[in-house]
Amino acid sequence: MKLVSFGDAGSERPGLLAAGDRIVPLDEVPGVSGDMNAILAQLPELRPRLAGLSGTVSLADVRLGPPVPHPGAIIAVGANYRAHITEIAGPAGPFPDTPVLFSKPAAALGGPYDPVVRPVESAQLDYECELAVVIGRGGRRIPREQALAHVAGYLIANDVTARDVFLGEMHKSPAYLQIMRGKGADTFCPTGPWLLTADQAPAPDRFRLRTWVNDELRQDGTTAQMIFDVPALVSSVSDAITLRPGDLILTGTPSGVGSTRQPPCFLQPGDTVRMEITGLGVMATPIRDER
Amino acid sequence: MKLVSFGDAGSERPGLLAAGDRIVPLDEVPGVSGDMNAILAQLPELRPRLAGLSGTVSLADVRLGPPVPHPGAIIAVGANYRAHITEIAGPAGPFPDTPVLFSKPAAALGGPYDPVVRPVESAQLDYECELAVVIGRGGRRIPREQALAHVAGYLIANDVTARDVFLGEMHKSPAYLQIMRGKGADTFCPTGPWLLTADQAPAPDRFRLRTWVNDELRQDGTTAQMIFDVPALVSSVSDAITLRPGDLILTGTPSGVGSTRQPPCFLQPGDTVRMEITGLGVMATPIRDER
Repeated sequence: MKLVSFGDAGSERPGLLAAGDRIVPLDEVPGVSGDMNAILAQLPELRPRLAGLSGTVSLADVRLGPPVPHPGAIIAVGANYRAHITEIAGPAGPFPDTPVLFSKPAAALGGPYDPVVRPVESAQLDYECELAVVIGRGGRRIPREQALAHVAGYLIANDVTARDVFLGEMHKSPAYLQIMRGKGADTFCPTGPWLLTADQAPAPDRFRLRTWVNDELRQDGTTAQMIFDVPALVSSVSDAITLRPGDLILTGTPSGVGSTRQPPCFLQPGDTVRMEITGLGVMATPIRDER
Repeated sequence: MKLVSFGDAGSERPGLLAAGDRIVPLDEVPGVSGDMNAILAQLPELRPRLAGLSGTVSLADVRLGPPVPHPGAIIAVGANYRAHITEIAGPAGPFPDTPVLFSKPAAALGGPYDPVVRPVESAQLDYECELAVVIGRGGRRIPREQALAHVAGYLIANDVTARDVFLGEMHKSPAYLQIMRGKGADTFCPTGPWLLTADQAPAPDRFRLRTWVNDELRQDGTTAQMIFDVPALVSSVSDAITLRPGDLILTGTPSGVGSTRQPPCFLQPGDTVRMEITGLGVMATPIRDER
């Protein structure tokens, strides 16, 4: 199943993307209640009820929002692809022994076609295409071998990063990494276009991730290249916090980001960032200047 | 006014702490609707309706939860007291030019008397007493001189930190700071006991903050010692994200944390951390081991 959220920003409704690009509004289906988080929590029980429904809303007529508009937590993993680490730090790495985690505020979420706004503080806006894991069944200290049973599905996320803001105070102290400003600002987490449920998705190490800026291919990796794979990440994040239905885990980006190109090549107003992941559709976000 | 959330964890009800330590359940007051975030958004209009109400629930009979149980964002400020920076880094600092921000997931919140759990990964659990600013009216790019009009009130927060986890991967790379694991784990953000509305609170530079571990005074600072004061912080955070009603800004901790004592002195199971801030009551959290 493909799940979407549609409608105006801030008041999206949960939907099922059915045949013919038509949406079934899930808040009109008898027996379905609650927001997307609640739906994800009940997915196994709801599945028979949702099979074979016909959509009543045309996809072309609505705005798509973030498939999960109100996650309790957005946990992002840094430095999870060897080629991305070496493009930034050189062939010797370093490579982390434990997944490096940070959180992005839910306020940073955007829909799959919403603009990403470059704030006035930044001249070095960059993209990071990432497979996002969506939690269905919550838990804490989830063993690796049980982790996939907690995954409701997958979607595309762009871990947008203002490189200059992110690193702005680090010349003074490594502890002054501006993670929130550099990776958590408004519009810095576009997601979508849909959530593909895990039963219909590839094995988690079989996704291909690609990013184009305008028509130029910039990133082309596969989740087989992850240092910590999806089961390891779900398990590891659940060692720190209790995972809840709707929580998102952004699993890191492959090589090819703009800051490591020769010369560096950052996003400019008027650009469009297009991301595609196997089975998860295409996200296309225009870049706008704040002013 | 003193606002509280009371009831079982996860299903707290909004309340007004009235005379005689009695709580007015705000979800029973005609004309008041929505959760604590919604109440904070309407505070100026609600104030006349709430004046003079008598409480029907005895404070002694209920559990207090986090006064704001579901903030959209918890933004914490690192390195905001000169004496705390020098106790960690030495007399030369460095001192940041811009407030250093990170976010804590809402899943980390706890009530004022709930246990703080030391995870198995840490042997260096530490406290950081902080004045938390609660947003009433939202906004983006709020000018400093208008910032206090966006503050609904204040409460005590402990920015609990597992020092060893926080710094665990930093010997490999400064970018591997484990902010989420070290500062965002379950129970790492106790808050309370109540939210004091700004109209009854001291000027934001007139709060005294004190921390005791068991009966030993460990921190004793005032908000006059902040590098970036409350109006500057509200303004600066709103440069990165759109602030919304109920958002929390943790404003940094004064000197006296356990990791900088000679010898270092970390929290142990059985300890009680008591924090007091002028007008904001006393928070007392016991330390428990995960196992």
